[in-house]
Amino acid sequence: MKFRVIGSAADQARVGELNTGHGLVRTPAFMPVGTRGTVKGVFPRDLLDLGAQVILCNTYHLLLRPGIDLLRDLGGLHRFLGWPGAILTDSGGYQVFSLSSLRRVDDHGVVFRSHLDGSPLFLSPELAVEFQLIAGSDLIMSLDECPPWPASPSELDQAVRRTVLWAARGKEAWERLQDSHASFPTPEAGLFGIVQGGGDARLRALCAEELGAIGFDGFAIGGVSVGEPPEEGLRAVAETVVHLDPARPRYVMGVGEPWQMVEMVNLGVDLFDCVLPTRLARHGVAYTGMGRISLRNSSFRLDPAPISSECGCYTCRNFSRAYLRHLLKSEEILGLMLLTLHNLYFYLCLMKEMRTALERGCWEAFLAEKRKRREEFEEGG
Amino acid sequence: MKFRVIGSAADQARVGELNTGHGLVRTPAFMPVGTRGTVKGVFPRDLLDLGAQVILCNTYHLLLRPGIDLLRDLGGLHRFLGWPGAILTDSGGYQVFSLSSLRRVDDHGVVFRSHLDGSPLFLSPELAVEFQLIAGSDLIMSLDECPPWPASPSELDQAVRRTVLWAARGKEAWERLQDSHASFPTPEAGLFGIVQGGGDARLRALCAEELGAIGFDGFAIGGVSVGEPPEEGLRAVAETVVHLDPARPRYVMGVGEPWQMVEMVNLGVDLFDCVLPTRLARHGVAYTGMGRISLRNSSFRLDPAPISSECGCYTCRNFSRAYLRHLLKSEEILGLMLLTLHNLYFYLCLMKEMRTALERGCWEAFLAEKRKRREEFEEGG
Ligand SMILES: [Zn+2]
Ligand SMILES: [Zn+2]
Repeated sequence: MKFRVIGSAADQARVGELNTGHGLVRTPAFMPVGTRGTVKGVFPRDLLDLGAQVILCNTYHLLLRPGIDLLRDLGGLHRFLGWPGAILTDSGGYQVFSLSSLRRVDDHGVVFRSHLDGSPLFLSPELAVEFQLIAGSDLIMSLDECPPWPASPSELDQAVRRTVLWAARGKEAWERLQDSHASFPTPEAGLFGIVQGGGDARLRALCAEELGAIGFDGFAIGGVSVGEPPEEGLRAVAETVVHLDPARPRYVMGVGEPWQMVEMVNLGVDLFDCVLPTRLARHGVAYTGMGRISLRNSSFRLDPAPISSECGCYTCRNFSRAYLRHLLKSEEILGLMLLTLHNLYFYLCLMKEMRTALERGCWEAFLAEKRKRREEFEEGG
Repeated sequence: MKFRVIGSAADQARVGELNTGHGLVRTPAFMPVGTRGTVKGVFPRDLLDLGAQVILCNTYHLLLRPGIDLLRDLGGLHRFLGWPGAILTDSGGYQVFSLSSLRRVDDHGVVFRSHLDGSPLFLSPELAVEFQLIAGSDLIMSLDECPPWPASPSELDQAVRRTVLWAARGKEAWERLQDSHASFPTPEAGLFGIVQGGGDARLRALCAEELGAIGFDGFAIGGVSVGEPPEEGLRAVAETVVHLDPARPRYVMGVGEPWQMVEMVNLGVDLFDCVLPTRLARHGVAYTGMGRISLRNSSFRLDPAPISSECGCYTCRNFSRAYLRHLLKSEEILGLMLLTLHNLYFYLCLMKEMRTALERGCWEAFLAEKRKRREEFEEGG
């Protein structure tokens, strides 16, 4: 994995190129989430057409089903999923802490039980790296401990201490396996460290510096979008980014709303993932330049207009709000398929717009326009 | 609507062209079923790519939701569904008898209650035709009474008598509305009569002759695939077809398995519809040239092969049985999407193979090969 900053605005927002073993990823980039080995309700060929360059898969879910042995036997994730683009895998840590039961955590790692069948599993920083290498991931995450929000100072201290310890051990495993990298499906993979520290600027700085000293191909910012007010998440990102090597890609995990991505790109973030566009689609909610709309709303019963007349996606070029409402009311799969397509198109177009604005040197104007629109239209904080 | 027989084998099996207001339909043709205004789990653009030329929509379901007023206001089914190809609508009769409650049936029509909200509705032969004209259907079915299987001789008698009476009244309404046809979304629509008569050859002949005397653009054979042994259905079709005008298209409703379509094409049938390829896909079952397979089967856990190495569909070109099994076990929508695509491809390819065999004058060899394969591989009767 190689990263190159192509251009930047105000020394922060930047456009770049991430060279992976599965194609070039132009940044800023949004990664659709393929939790259990599929971006829900989308054919891989349509993901490519939408402009997706990289998707995220959850190590925890894949560990449970289909299991790492199967992925090894079948030649890795890309072949299994029929996805030719890049794949980022998380470390599994976040889901171990949020989904599994009967955990025992210490510095060695985590013992937990599958939320599917209760079978016991063990995850360590070394195994997290090895599993992701076996899966053939392009962008590999170190195991981290992500504290909930709000967390006490001692919880945050502990999470940062353990995250740095685990990152160092993951890096050691990575180097120990270096000679055998060629035997994994994606020899050119890159390893990321994850910065924790909650809303504590001092801890964020400490964590970022220590990870920087260990040395990684990229840096993720974790512990954002875990329940905090969005402004605090934005502040935490701002306070972290300044301590990260500008030559490395920066990835904010689990973010976010369109306006959050715009603000974080402005701070110098390169990569995002979020379940919102796909999850909201399954609930009948569509993104538009004028905020979200719920297609189940009875006001759309006879509406011949598309979701958004500004949108060039397949859904908006061919189907009315009235038809989408009919599909949703009838609980027809096609409804969520069409909304998923539209929402991902919306997200991926936004990233493209940001890259274009940065390339053309008109980021400030773009940002001002987006902020103005948000004041006028968008819901929520 | 215009129909032309292009060529035939043994004076029965034939290849033809159905000219509709929404494109040419090459026959024999299979119509994917879009019950509630969508072929479940398939984008219209993918249906076109698969080679679907005409789809079936159920008048009963559309009558209940979104309702005929909405379809009128929004310019008809084609625009509503975003489907540029031809549409055949059934009359609503079959579902009124099988799904709705509190029916009162007499020669005037049927009073019934919606199975969705219990609201009372009335359907008559005149209204059935008018509703389908408003919906902009290309191929319109007369209201019929379809008796269950087995039915008593008097039930069959009654059904045939009423079906002929209703067909005549539907035809009258059709002619009365002739001057205003241009005001409907599909002025070139064609009207079909439906032959009932169960397994009674004398009644089938009588019904076919009487409908022929009334005069229709095409003829459907109903009361097949309603629970009878497949051989009896085949016999009923054979005994009906010979009494139908060979210059008109023939459509067997609700059929069927691939081997049934082959046998019925051999008898001179031109059109089919069936929920099996889409419904079985949702249950994880795929068609292959060697019979059906259930992708949930644990024997496919590590199977890197596609559903069928003979198949050229998107699913078989890109995904393994192991991945499909993973998706089905995880209850991921993509699993049923990929299986639906494969099964429809299988059905539509079979129709294309039949047309090619008929065009090239090698129908007998084709039929013999299919019968031999069936003896070797296919499940069930
Ligand atoms: Zn759109
Ligand atoms: Zn296939």
